[in-house]
Amino acid sequence: MRILSGMRPTGKLHIGHLFGALNSWIKLQEEGNECFYFIADWHALTTHYNDTEEITKNSFEIAKSYIAAGINPEKSIIFIQSEIKEHAELTLLFSMFVSVSRLERVPTYKELKQQLSDKDLSNAGFLIYPILQAADILIYRADGVPVGEDQVYHIELTREIARKFNYLYENVFPEPEPILSKITKLLGVDGRKMSKSYGNIVPLIATKEELRKKIMPMITDPARKRRTDPGTPEKCPVWDYHKAFGITKEDAQWVKNGCTTASIGCVDCKKLLLKNMLSTLEPIWERYDKLTNEYVKDVICEGNKRAKEEAQKTMELVRNAMKLDYTKYLK
Amino acid sequence: MRILSGMRPTGKLHIGHLFGALNSWIKLQEEGNECFYFIADWHALTTHYNDTEEITKNSFEIAKSYIAAGINPEKSIIFIQSEIKEHAELTLLFSMFVSVSRLERVPTYKELKQQLSDKDLSNAGFLIYPILQAADILIYRADGVPVGEDQVYHIELTREIARKFNYLYENVFPEPEPILSKITKLLGVDGRKMSKSYGNIVPLIATKEELRKKIMPMITDPARKRRTDPGTPEKCPVWDYHKAFGITKEDAQWVKNGCTTASIGCVDCKKLLLKNMLSTLEPIWERYDKLTNEYVKDVICEGNKRAKEEAQKTMELVRNAMKLDYTKYLK
Ligand code: SF4
Ligand code: SF4
Repeated sequence: MRILSGMRPTGKLHIGHLFGALNSWIKLQEEGNECFYFIADWHALTTHYNDTEEITKNSFEIAKSYIAAGINPEKSIIFIQSEIKEHAELTLLFSMFVSVSRLERVPTYKELKQQLSDKDLSNAGFLIYPILQAADILIYRADGVPVGEDQVYHIELTREIARKFNYLYENVFPEPEPILSKITKLLGVDGRKMSKSYGNIVPLIATKEELRKKIMPMITDPARKRRTDPGTPEKCPVWDYHKAFGITKEDAQWVKNGCTTASIGCVDCKKLLLKNMLSTLEPIWERYDKLTNEYVKDVICEGNKRAKEEAQKTMELVRNAMKLDYTKYLK
Repeated sequence: MRILSGMRPTGKLHIGHLFGALNSWIKLQEEGNECFYFIADWHALTTHYNDTEEITKNSFEIAKSYIAAGINPEKSIIFIQSEIKEHAELTLLFSMFVSVSRLERVPTYKELKQQLSDKDLSNAGFLIYPILQAADILIYRADGVPVGEDQVYHIELTREIARKFNYLYENVFPEPEPILSKITKLLGVDGRKMSKSYGNIVPLIATKEELRKKIMPMITDPARKRRTDPGTPEKCPVWDYHKAFGITKEDAQWVKNGCTTASIGCVDCKKLLLKNMLSTLEPIWERYDKLTNEYVKDVICEGNKRAKEEAQKTMELVRNAMKLDYTKYLK
């Protein structure tokens, strides 16, 4: 299967990205699929058009983090969206037959406009970004797209666009399937949604000391005001972290008993978590430290090249199907 | 001055295009301006996405007609929009800061939707086409755009987009001026607006016999039912043709007297018109017949190349201004 997925370079990656996406990307890679993983810098503009200072830096950093986390450039293609201009061409062509009212009905359209009221989302780019997303996927004729629940609707729209194109012109696009993996949603250290703007993220790349400083003061079950108050792990974000970072059965029992009977303190609990986090994260940090910028650059350039080849192949089929191919007249 | 203008390849050119656009394009060329004249095939999709069979053929034909009419490839650049992918990239980037409500306020948006009720104009491409038009103009950093009255608003929007870009990022774009020339609007042979869909056009490229067959049965002042009924030239579309095709003062007097006193018939009047039309059109037809497809192909390919160079130069400035330039990281 050909797989495609990407992330917006609006900040550094955090551990939410590992469990929300990267781990399933790596699994798909290891299962022998042909994977295209990209950095969606044009998408970042829909929410950050007036704050672009960090986009290229973040993009490069994210590519580096992909590799450190386990995306293997020998197996998968890592590329940057804006370097493949064909995404813009296909977006424009798709926009010709996707109705404005269809785009307004995308649930995230009105929702995000309300949620991100500090951002200006009245722009046309935000309205048409599901078309850009469809172009991102279809230009590689991907079969599968690993996504979170909140993105399933967008894949459905992508399938609609593929069907409509195939119906209006010629059969060019397969209908991609959403690939949902069981995801452990991790909250931020203050118990709210993990988000750069809340300043509550746990970065994917950090030092041991930085990690400790994030985890130790982390919010826990509010019932455990004092060491002697019993708590409920299910009401504690630390517990979700434990599950994500693969706590053993015995340790889980120890936490459950200890927490509900107040026989352990949150500090003990977090020390165990830190140990487990480090055994997942330290290998990533080590790989990260060994990656030279020169190597990351080569990986991206090679990825861009391979992505471009594929995108150009598809665009030839597209132009041919739409009768916009000038070969007969100009070549 | 750098000049840019274009036409949609939705059909063959007619004499309306000569007086509505081509003559002023030629004048601007002869005044020594640097002119870019293009064929707006992506724009044709906004109204013809489900009827693309003829677009490439029309585009080629229109380029040939440009040259026949007097656009000189030694002086002006003739190119095809869809061959310059950068127009799509710039459109996408502009869409990030142009609001949907701004686009809905473009007067032609609601108007054309009502007028062309046989076309599906609910698509996003039709909503964002003023952005594409702004990109067409600004990507060449044009100073002037020859337009009809109905397009002045679009140039105003283009200026707004240029200003907003320059304000948000860096000063990259000059604000282009609309160049209005005195235009003689020619009606179709049935007295309605000249339009391919009414079947009432007078083609720019035709034979003498074809032209005669169009002009002789042409509608005149309805008051002249019989040869003996006097008429009023101002109420007759033939009279507008006379003016467009440069009737002499004496001949104009002869028509006015003859028509109002019924001393000449409409047949006499149209014979004079035909003579004058031929003296304008025959040189165009002769040039047209001499143009080989090979030559036209070379002109377009060379034009595309030069346009692409300019577009790429601008896109470098744009990416630089928007901080989307990866040179530092990837090159
Ligand atoms: S003991 Fe662990 S699970 Fe219980 S409240 Fe404290 S941190 Fe949370
Ligand atoms: S004489 Fe000429 S101007 Fe008068 S009605 Fe006939 S065609 Fe028209």
